[in-house]
Amino acid sequence: MPERIGKYTIGLSSMPAILGYAAVVGKKEGEGPLGNEFDYIYTDAAAGQDSWEKAESTMHSDAVRRAIAKAGKTPDDINIVFAGDLLPQCMGTNFGMRELDMPLSGVYGACSTMALSLANAGIWVDSSAANLAVASTSSHFCSAEKQFRMPLEYGGQRAPTCQWTATASGAAVVGRGESNVIMDKVTIGRIVDLGIKDSNNMGASMAPAAAATIADFLSDTATAPTDYDMILTGDLGSIGSALLKELLNKENGIDISAVHNDCGMMMFDANKQEDICAGGSGCGCSGAIVCSHILRRMNDGELNSVLFVGTGALLSSVSPLQSESVPGIAHAVLLRRKP
Amino acid sequence: MPERIGKYTIGLSSMPAILGYAAVVGKKEGEGPLGNEFDYIYTDAAAGQDSWEKAESTMHSDAVRRAIAKAGKTPDDINIVFAGDLLPQCMGTNFGMRELDMPLSGVYGACSTMALSLANAGIWVDSSAANLAVASTSSHFCSAEKQFRMPLEYGGQRAPTCQWTATASGAAVVGRGESNVIMDKVTIGRIVDLGIKDSNNMGASMAPAAAATIADFLSDTATAPTDYDMILTGDLGSIGSALLKELLNKENGIDISAVHNDCGMMMFDANKQEDICAGGSGCGCSGAIVCSHILRRMNDGELNSVLFVGTGALLSSVSPLQSESVPGIAHAVLLRRKP
Repeated sequence: MPERIGKYTIGLSSMPAILGYAAVVGKKEGEGPLGNEFDYIYTDAAAGQDSWEKAESTMHSDAVRRAIAKAGKTPDDINIVFAGDLLPQCMGTNFGMRELDMPLSGVYGACSTMALSLANAGIWVDSSAANLAVASTSSHFCSAEKQFRMPLEYGGQRAPTCQWTATASGAAVVGRGESNVIMDKVTIGRIVDLGIKDSNNMGASMAPAAAATIADFLSDTATAPTDYDMILTGDLGSIGSALLKELLNKENGIDISAVHNDCGMMMFDANKQEDICAGGSGCGCSGAIVCSHILRRMNDGELNSVLFVGTGALLSSVSPLQSESVPGIAHAVLLRRKP
Repeated sequence: MPERIGKYTIGLSSMPAILGYAAVVGKKEGEGPLGNEFDYIYTDAAAGQDSWEKAESTMHSDAVRRAIAKAGKTPDDINIVFAGDLLPQCMGTNFGMRELDMPLSGVYGACSTMALSLANAGIWVDSSAANLAVASTSSHFCSAEKQFRMPLEYGGQRAPTCQWTATASGAAVVGRGESNVIMDKVTIGRIVDLGIKDSNNMGASMAPAAAATIADFLSDTATAPTDYDMILTGDLGSIGSALLKELLNKENGIDISAVHNDCGMMMFDANKQEDICAGGSGCGCSGAIVCSHILRRMNDGELNSVLFVGTGALLSSVSPLQSESVPGIAHAVLLRRKP
């Protein structure tokens, strides 16, 4: 049964378990430092489809099918899917889920989607509203660039503050059953907007929201950063990560540097891979890293507790053209090894 | 505590209550048959803003503030907001909620959003994950036409199957406390896509999903249409409503004609108001009608039980240009007078 802890956090007392997880990525992600952790690497960025959007849908559907199969279940067993993506009207999700005939609760949280969908799945399973829930998300470099910045054909130069939208999808199955990893707590974030207007600097727009959610979580639970093996943001990149640490230090007196990592800095090797700039981003970046490397390490006993903080930049394809700033949001999920 | 009933339905045993609700609409909606039911009518379609998207955000924020105030609460009391809209990256929601500093779980369900947000809010309150939750949505004729069809300046002729996207926002506060109306059950829908490709005929693309969800709900609860005072779809319009009744009759042997109504057919008077064609649509159409006329009638004892079935056409601004069909989805919420 969910139980409110402090002002913003919810404890999941029945310990909903991660019964299966899967991640699929594109070629460039497969060539990154975590390449050998993913379930499948698409060497064809179009995934055999005739548009980038359909490629993203195909990868999203693939990740969900794989996660369900790895949990030893079928789509017919799933009570609810929480899923979303970056595209207008969540095209990557809706067209990806179309063939699977599972109840779908669409979510929108920009790059915070993996944490938001996991949080909702955890609440539903903990409360018995669902026996089995799927949380998933996707992003694709080509569908995202076209949407938020420039058509790829334009060949625009990338700013050093840019992040590279990962071509990736991650999915997890949450339910009751045997598993080494459980969901322990969730914190749903509030929108924070400090007025950043540069759509090529998402890290700066998301860092204040990440700081707020981490501070809320630590305050609600009366814990310190070092009580966790990892505080994992996704995806602030190098610039947003530095800003997050500075903000938490100066505003809240909290030092997360000993345990912080960021999916945007893990997906690629900015020194070896071209044009990565400040790191990776996109819903699928943290989705794929959590649903491979992180859950694998937890399953293997290398990590006992990970506070996964999904961070989203809530700009739209229209809002920057109307001189709007970029609101940020961050949602947190505490994953633990089963006691 | 939520309790699963049959394959797709969830009973809310603690009877989460509708503690407050509000609806704001544009001028044309205010001139419709329900004009005197709304909390506020914006005679300025721009709501004092310099873009249609910002106008929608303003109305969305206004509806949420009014609903919270009518529940005798403040935004600081709210544990979670479930909200979404039609615009790319849910701009109407994210920019509308930015100033309110409440935890936000963004949802995407196209025109099914009011039912989807209510369903999620009901589950969270019933399970004690939240004490107070807000469910809300918005749409705006001008921001939607620009996104999904033609720029208004183009002056394109409207097809007779078209629906008029309502300029409207509705919000409800769900919690524990004194109220005449409670949430009794919810059914989360699956995507149904029969291959309709005409983005000027949303009714036809959503009707099969509405039929599936209504059939699932009646089967799960072993009830008949006439066990309810109203089965209210939102928003199929006249063409989608006729198709829904035909599909349910032929495929499932279910006759809902004695109790069916549709928010798309209630918002405007197609005989008196220009260019309404097949009726109203848009997340805000059913959002505003449920959060005014319907909840007011239930509160006054004129209706005892309403099965509200929100219907969404999951097209994107991109998908029709890629020759894709329009997937439909429908989510159901059973509202009841408190016993």
